[in-house]
Amino acid sequence: MPQFLNTSDADFETRFAALLGAKREDSPDVDAIVADIIADVRHRGDAAVIELTAKFDRLELTPETLRFSDEEIDAYCEQVSDEERAALELAAERIRTYHARQMPEDAMWTEDNGAQLGWRWTPVSAAGLYVPGGLASYPSSVLMNAIPAKVAGVERLAIVVPTPGGVANPLVLLAARLAGVDEIYRIGGAQAVAALAYGTDTIAPVDKITGPGNAFVAAAKRRVFGKVGIDMIAGPSEILVIADKDNTPDWIALDLLSQAEHDESAQSILITDDEAFGQDVVAAVEKRLETLERRAIAGASWRDYGAVIVTKDLSEAAALSNRVAPEHLELCVADPDGLCEEITHAGAIFLGQFTPEAIGDYVGGPNHVLPTARSARFSSGLSVMDFVKRTTLSKMTPEALKAIGPAAEVLATSESLEAHGLSVTARLDALNK
Amino acid sequence: MPQFLNTSDADFETRFAALLGAKREDSPDVDAIVADIIADVRHRGDAAVIELTAKFDRLELTPETLRFSDEEIDAYCEQVSDEERAALELAAERIRTYHARQMPEDAMWTEDNGAQLGWRWTPVSAAGLYVPGGLASYPSSVLMNAIPAKVAGVERLAIVVPTPGGVANPLVLLAARLAGVDEIYRIGGAQAVAALAYGTDTIAPVDKITGPGNAFVAAAKRRVFGKVGIDMIAGPSEILVIADKDNTPDWIALDLLSQAEHDESAQSILITDDEAFGQDVVAAVEKRLETLERRAIAGASWRDYGAVIVTKDLSEAAALSNRVAPEHLELCVADPDGLCEEITHAGAIFLGQFTPEAIGDYVGGPNHVLPTARSARFSSGLSVMDFVKRTTLSKMTPEALKAIGPAAEVLATSESLEAHGLSVTARLDALNK
Repeated sequence: MPQFLNTSDADFETRFAALLGAKREDSPDVDAIVADIIADVRHRGDAAVIELTAKFDRLELTPETLRFSDEEIDAYCEQVSDEERAALELAAERIRTYHARQMPEDAMWTEDNGAQLGWRWTPVSAAGLYVPGGLASYPSSVLMNAIPAKVAGVERLAIVVPTPGGVANPLVLLAARLAGVDEIYRIGGAQAVAALAYGTDTIAPVDKITGPGNAFVAAAKRRVFGKVGIDMIAGPSEILVIADKDNTPDWIALDLLSQAEHDESAQSILITDDEAFGQDVVAAVEKRLETLERRAIAGASWRDYGAVIVTKDLSEAAALSNRVAPEHLELCVADPDGLCEEITHAGAIFLGQFTPEAIGDYVGGPNHVLPTARSARFSSGLSVMDFVKRTTLSKMTPEALKAIGPAAEVLATSESLEAHGLSVTARLDALNK
Repeated sequence: MPQFLNTSDADFETRFAALLGAKREDSPDVDAIVADIIADVRHRGDAAVIELTAKFDRLELTPETLRFSDEEIDAYCEQVSDEERAALELAAERIRTYHARQMPEDAMWTEDNGAQLGWRWTPVSAAGLYVPGGLASYPSSVLMNAIPAKVAGVERLAIVVPTPGGVANPLVLLAARLAGVDEIYRIGGAQAVAALAYGTDTIAPVDKITGPGNAFVAAAKRRVFGKVGIDMIAGPSEILVIADKDNTPDWIALDLLSQAEHDESAQSILITDDEAFGQDVVAAVEKRLETLERRAIAGASWRDYGAVIVTKDLSEAAALSNRVAPEHLELCVADPDGLCEEITHAGAIFLGQFTPEAIGDYVGGPNHVLPTARSARFSSGLSVMDFVKRTTLSKMTPEALKAIGPAAEVLATSESLEAHGLSVTARLDALNK
């Protein structure tokens, strides 16, 4: 049974604060091991990557077989059923269309004094995408990471995906191909992150690394940050559903379970203004848990971190949701657009009862890589913006320099930065001659 | 004397690679100390902050005096000269005008099947800005950090600034007031970062922390990252100037020195297509170094990390600059706009000989917080975007769910995420009844 809270209870604030503060993930401290692996790859390059792959993935490679050949990718792609291929193509197309709208615009304007100011966006030259192997090897994640990079104009996009025992997921390879990925390497773990960041004889270094991974991958990404850019370090998935009584309890139950089934550390929260409806959803979850394939995982998540919160009205529900800043937020209410106006912090919002969160995981169009662990208070999901950077532009005319240069001289003097001031003074002296 | 390289030299690649790879900063490893300080502030709050301030800043505070009162700020602001106030006001106005153009736009569109998709930007609720004390306490940095936050709509903006021995910089307080800062605390170091991230009885926690600082501050920002958002960890400043022979050597020399005077670890590079001009600039730098107030610092930086590179033409200069990905790039050439088109990686570009980089430090309008250490390959300077976050929006209609839901079911099955698929199936079953 999940927690059942009511905002009218005397101990509500204490229990809600405990829910907010609950540490759901205890990552093992693998930082020392990862530091050694990165140093080894920096020092010995391909040889280290090959040794570590033999050790961790039970796979013997050579510099020539580190990368999938086009023929191998072709062969894997042919294993995918027509139905699955069509589904992936639809997803890719919708994700591409959505992200194309995110391309930011350049700007340049001229002031009265003739000065021109603005900025320009340029893509990252090379990006690397980490794709987990085994059970969590999700083709949808390949699309969600790779397509924004290609939309941004990244010229070279490399994927690393471990293939323990040599087994690859045909759907992952097809997704990579549909997304326009340029290179695919059958390596994983901290050694793959190190190879992308520092390069080896076979793998050219990249400028940015994105994608999910286990504790070793997360620690490696933290360590190479600065040398390359990284995306967020994702925590366990979360959903918060705000639902009024005019919903089908079973639909809401399935939405809660579709987060819970990801991971025992996932969190599913229902906030409703109707206690009886909340009880109905709890019953519906229990019923689904009897037969769900991943009931062990989903049941543990629901029991340990699930919660139902009853509020006096929907505005109170929105206010609580803002304190949670959930990764995924469903608004299953009569006026979802109206309630949406009250939401200040959330990674993604799904409006109305016909928008289950799972649509956003696959085919909606928006990205499914979203801020977890309350970080929607200050960060956004993955987007085209993660693969471009802005260069600011300034061009002064003599007239503009005469107008604003003296203020720069004053401030440089205040900050005791003499050369700063003199670089302006020397020009003004020449102009005022 | 700085290094003098020529792309036609046989050993050019080796020397250029060494220049790119030079480690200019050796930060002391203060991580263990910082971890203890953060734990102490989390545990004991104000009491820990007050004790650490007495120890490091020789300043006795109480919970009541941690924060500057309005009257104190008034009194400090009155110490600022009219000339300095006018310069700060001009700078603030120009920075505000530039950054107001950066506000990203919301979007929402409707597909043929009735589905609505889009996104919405919302500001971070509370931000904290670290301002160094002592010599590096720059009022211009207060403007550059605080104004984008306020333009973004951040409701609560707090500054922490250490005041060793109780001495505050009146210009810093005036800059904070001009920028609309809400709270100013006279604390610094890792303890101030911890107080902003976790909160104390006196200081409410924030969601994002920006601003420069020493090794302790940088380590503390890295440690609280995740709990709150942070901006980049800035390295020593850099400038790269591309100049043809039709420039005044002294102007270019001053531009190079205005980076060099920041820090012995700063780096100034000139790339020119005219060797004699390069020699003239070196001579002009030497001459200015005879009298410059900060000649010890600037001289060390120029000697240890400065470089002049002679290329066969300006396109080659642009290509080398792209490999450096400099924080600041001046294009002092006959056609700066044309050469600008060849630049793919730079934090900020200053076009033409009347745009010394120092203009951008103070009054140009663009932000002076820019990516260092080659990180312009994958990141951008500070902007309004650092204080807003995007929430994606999806709203399906029954018709839209019928159109794209089946593909989500297929992919959920492929990924063995049964509840994901069922959350769609349950709705489609009801719709198809």
